[in-house]
Amino acid sequence: MIVNMSDSATEQQIEHIIQRIREAGFQPHVTRGTERTIVAAVGSGGRRHEIEALSVAPGVDNVVAIAQPFKLVSRQTRPQGSAVEVGAAKIKIGGPEVVVIAGPCSVESREQLLETAEGVKRAGATMLRGGAYKPRTSPYEFQGLGIEALKILREARELTGLPVVTEVMSTEDVDLICEYADMLQVGARNMQNFALLRRLATIKKPILLKRGPSATVKEWLLAAEYLLSGGNDQVVLCERGIKTFETATRNTFDLSAVALAKELSHLPVVADPSHGTGKQSLIGPVSRAAIAVGADGIIVEVHPCPERALSDGPQSLDIPQFERVMRGLSAPLRPVLARLGAA
Amino acid sequence: MIVNMSDSATEQQIEHIIQRIREAGFQPHVTRGTERTIVAAVGSGGRRHEIEALSVAPGVDNVVAIAQPFKLVSRQTRPQGSAVEVGAAKIKIGGPEVVVIAGPCSVESREQLLETAEGVKRAGATMLRGGAYKPRTSPYEFQGLGIEALKILREARELTGLPVVTEVMSTEDVDLICEYADMLQVGARNMQNFALLRRLATIKKPILLKRGPSATVKEWLLAAEYLLSGGNDQVVLCERGIKTFETATRNTFDLSAVALAKELSHLPVVADPSHGTGKQSLIGPVSRAAIAVGADGIIVEVHPCPERALSDGPQSLDIPQFERVMRGLSAPLRPVLARLGAA
Amino acid sequence: MIVNMSDSATEQQIEHIIQRIREAGFQPHVTRGTERTIVAAVGSGGRRHEIEALSVAPGVDNVVAIAQPFKLVSRQTRPQGSAVEVGAAKIKIGGPEVVVIAGPCSVESREQLLETAEGVKRAGATMLRGGAYKPRTSPYEFQGLGIEALKILREARELTGLPVVTEVMSTEDVDLICEYADMLQVGARNMQNFALLRRLATIKKPILLKRGPSATVKEWLLAAEYLLSGGNDQVVLCERGIKTFETATRNTFDLSAVALAKELSHLPVVADPSHGTGKQSLIGPVSRAAIAVGADGIIVEVHPCPERALSDGPQSLDIPQFERVMRGLSAPLRPVLARLGAA
Amino acid sequence: MIVNMSDSATEQQIEHIIQRIREAGFQPHVTRGTERTIVAAVGSGGRRHEIEALSVAPGVDNVVAIAQPFKLVSRQTRPQGSAVEVGAAKIKIGGPEVVVIAGPCSVESREQLLETAEGVKRAGATMLRGGAYKPRTSPYEFQGLGIEALKILREARELTGLPVVTEVMSTEDVDLICEYADMLQVGARNMQNFALLRRLATIKKPILLKRGPSATVKEWLLAAEYLLSGGNDQVVLCERGIKTFETATRNTFDLSAVALAKELSHLPVVADPSHGTGKQSLIGPVSRAAIAVGADGIIVEVHPCPERALSDGPQSLDIPQFERVMRGLSAPLRPVLARLGAA
Repeated sequence: MIVNMSDSATEQQIEHIIQRIREAGFQPHVTRGTERTIVAAVGSGGRRHEIEALSVAPGVDNVVAIAQPFKLVSRQTRPQGSAVEVGAAKIKIGGPEVVVIAGPCSVESREQLLETAEGVKRAGATMLRGGAYKPRTSPYEFQGLGIEALKILREARELTGLPVVTEVMSTEDVDLICEYADMLQVGARNMQNFALLRRLATIKKPILLKRGPSATVKEWLLAAEYLLSGGNDQVVLCERGIKTFETATRNTFDLSAVALAKELSHLPVVADPSHGTGKQSLIGPVSRAAIAVGADGIIVEVHPCPERALSDGPQSLDIPQFERVMRGLSAPLRPVLARLGAA
Repeated sequence: MIVNMSDSATEQQIEHIIQRIREAGFQPHVTRGTERTIVAAVGSGGRRHEIEALSVAPGVDNVVAIAQPFKLVSRQTRPQGSAVEVGAAKIKIGGPEVVVIAGPCSVESREQLLETAEGVKRAGATMLRGGAYKPRTSPYEFQGLGIEALKILREARELTGLPVVTEVMSTEDVDLICEYADMLQVGARNMQNFALLRRLATIKKPILLKRGPSATVKEWLLAAEYLLSGGNDQVVLCERGIKTFETATRNTFDLSAVALAKELSHLPVVADPSHGTGKQSLIGPVSRAAIAVGADGIIVEVHPCPERALSDGPQSLDIPQFERVMRGLSAPLRPVLARLGAA
Repeated sequence: MIVNMSDSATEQQIEHIIQRIREAGFQPHVTRGTERTIVAAVGSGGRRHEIEALSVAPGVDNVVAIAQPFKLVSRQTRPQGSAVEVGAAKIKIGGPEVVVIAGPCSVESREQLLETAEGVKRAGATMLRGGAYKPRTSPYEFQGLGIEALKILREARELTGLPVVTEVMSTEDVDLICEYADMLQVGARNMQNFALLRRLATIKKPILLKRGPSATVKEWLLAAEYLLSGGNDQVVLCERGIKTFETATRNTFDLSAVALAKELSHLPVVADPSHGTGKQSLIGPVSRAAIAVGADGIIVEVHPCPERALSDGPQSLDIPQFERVMRGLSAPLRPVLARLGAA
Repeated sequence: MIVNMSDSATEQQIEHIIQRIREAGFQPHVTRGTERTIVAAVGSGGRRHEIEALSVAPGVDNVVAIAQPFKLVSRQTRPQGSAVEVGAAKIKIGGPEVVVIAGPCSVESREQLLETAEGVKRAGATMLRGGAYKPRTSPYEFQGLGIEALKILREARELTGLPVVTEVMSTEDVDLICEYADMLQVGARNMQNFALLRRLATIKKPILLKRGPSATVKEWLLAAEYLLSGGNDQVVLCERGIKTFETATRNTFDLSAVALAKELSHLPVVADPSHGTGKQSLIGPVSRAAIAVGADGIIVEVHPCPERALSDGPQSLDIPQFERVMRGLSAPLRPVLARLGAA
């Protein structure tokens, strides 16, 4: 880290910083410029926050971090990338092939889920999603069927062989959900629910960690670091769009973040075009784009009758639409205009 | 709610919408324009989500909500506004006077907290803040002293008479914190931790509900609606800045949101200029602005030695700085240039 | 448009709105609900802003626009989409094939440009970009070579046959640039420079209209509407990223906006991954994603030696890197994991 | 500036950076850490962009700027702050008193403007605003009366003595507007119209420079630097809100930016609560907050009949409302709750 002194800093103030850097367990290294002095804190064993707090010491302009704050999720620790296997079917996320996870936003009934599960399997999906506990903006909206939904999800898995992922919203539900699901999802609004992350770090199931709507890629990777540093390295990241000024789409799907997360981290990354766009008509093209940019999978909301869905209808595909999206995933890229002849 | 048909909608598609509106418990009301038709869903007892989901029905362009989705927090229910009393000292938030809550980001030691508590009381603060359980972006940062911190906070209250507010991060800690604290804070990153909100709705202590960094005012009020609809109407809102592209401040402090929240809701609103700006030098002016715009209180981070703080040092005031901010709160507004004489 | 009365609106206030809607050239259509009344303004010949302004009339809660405000750029006017031909080579943007526009951020010298032009042509680019007049955040940065750069661009076109696109920053430069370039670019920061748009509406050259960093898709299409309504329908839209809280990339590349712009408008859309990401390493994957999502072309910054570039070095590719990106554009999409066998 | 080498950088790569720093006119200063090496570029006469471009050199992780990029606008050059005098009335912006600029969004007619001018003067405003050339999102909206409006503005000044500020959208209009107006406004959408800024740097009139909706404070100050470095130091900054995800207000009014701009720069700063909030009801409280935070003035939209305004009706005050806002500006701040007795 670098402590950047203001141009009016006195010798005494610089000396104070040098001493505080030593106290924090780093070695100070001073560079005196024509206008200002910078003091680097060198070494790896020191206490970073003590250097950060020096930004308010007298004579200091600001403090700049140089190294990335995450460790175990860093690609440097596993340059070849990691893969996560889900369920008895051992669906591999992060392998050579793209995984497709599909299903309704919420489990609403046995009929609805089984029809969807069979439909998405027929169309080629390899995992099933479905919400039992639903995080809803308003207390007056449908909050999910809870344990009843978990039982229906298990039945669907038995019928179709598709491993199941479902969201966990509270530490108190973790044990129960582990009995029924193959993978636990941390929703976007809980990405920094650290009590929940610490609890999930102790289980043996893989985790699908959604990016928060206002989380930077760095904050997202640090949320994953909670899981790895707590003992669970079966983590898959999921980009689902961020909040911006654009209201024509529900969120702004940050496709560069998929490529960037894979560059910075060894963890697999999947993309959620349903929440990322909030619009049926964009799910096909954005799913293709996610695969083109390097995502290890996509997760898509499918409902037998979106206009009757209890949640997220506007962004759900019906089964024939999902089949078309699946076919689109293997269509070739549009050709590049051939150049004008020899140079 | 209004269902806006596309200009190519057929009679049959319009008929379908009319029927679905009836099924959802509303009365349909059709307006036929020269280019397009709109169908209003009239009435108050219907199921809103069924109308929202019609945005994917054939021939529909979009669905527009007309009424606000929150009820109990609406100012219409208590036009005169509500006030919340905290602790044995019965500090009234939402009364004629502004409340000042001050203290360190984290409780780090008995000495640090008691020194701060006495300092802020001397300077005029009326409540004490201090973190026992800390939500930290990285797992390698200081996570709080937990129950030990709660005990120190209680001791500080006994010594100074200042009621105590502290953050709760997990449903599992609620009972314990209730034993020690006078008010429980829901942090910004947990604003939509609905399991936590539902649990806090059942307790008898007042809640300080921070706005999430990417929450609209509407979403913030709906989070409060979880508390009121669950049975706890002792709720104080807290604006603490939102995430935007501007990086010169830690967050963008949304002062209009304070005025708007008070216009839309009867709940008291306090402002947190420490997180809102992230910069010592801005806390004084922004605190004054918060009071000018109508905030019922401010909450400020104070530490005996910010450059040695274990968290949030860069935005913490030391005690003499806090005393200056307090004096500034009662300085008169700058005068307006007198006009040029008679027209 | 719909005028949404507040629930305390009086009959007299409703009557006033009805009368004002008539005065504005629309027909009023009243829907009375159990809680509130809405009044639709029906018809197409009225003055929209008069209805918008009614949001401050007594008894009005808000005014909601129903129809899209753009006309000539709407896909409804040309459902099959439009294509734009550039230069003597008649490069077609919006046809079945993807166009690749490449070249340096700024023209810095004859040698630099000619080397780049030949390099990108060899690698398969079909158009050449290069800045003569540069919009720079700081007045102390390189501002472009002006007319000298235009002459060098013309020479490069003669040598390679690649049509040339270059940015115009001022109405005063339009005539001069038209003499040299085949297509004029409106930069992101000038997207709402309406004086410039009105001037460009009168010329015969195609325009590349970049999306502003804080422009919604709707505002972007309305900027294009200035060009079409003024007489120039040779317009290509260019997505180049928007400003958000994420700082790991220079901008947040909004790929959904490419798909959405093509859905709403008949105009061709190209994507600029160089500005969209600001990072060399992301340009390849994001270019592929842009093609997958439906972009009609990409525009990429290439420099013989990015670390010596006078502007935008960090996001420029060198020629071998550009060749690799080009090869990547025709690589097939990663396969989807085959499903688990029969259901 | 600091070049931060990656932890796998070779000696040869570090040597290359050292040499390039020398070529760019700086002195290299190397700090070798346990994990990585940083190389500072020391000195003030070098070419910054050449160091920035090193971010793509082999072995480099990133490049961090230390010093602020602006010079003439920096408060360091005039620690006591600067003031700008406007018109024959010598209205001083940046002096001990707050200036109030008021008037309609657009000049619509002689009657409308004169009635407004007299009304706002009577209520205490010290300057008149009014648009002659209007930047409108859609080409179908009212575009302003042009020179006719300028003549009406001059007449209003003669009648009331209030100096006039009006927006300039194009270099071609500068001379004409200078004949009529006392101060020229650069609108938010033109903040980075550098051709316009360069032209305005050569005139003798004061400039009101609005912050762009997606401009950081740094970019805003650099836009002002264009004016000062070109010869015009009569510059007043104007905060008018930035674009964020919050849609309940038209923009997010960034009040901290007013305090921050005054800390970083000597230029006066005024605040525009009309555009900053877009809502009549918020203009009073936000105006008070702007003064409390340290703004040197406010600029407010006033119209005799907002519901008939040709532009910006929803955020315009009528004259009685403006009078109430003016009275509110001198009301005292709400008192702070007295503390609980002696500690």
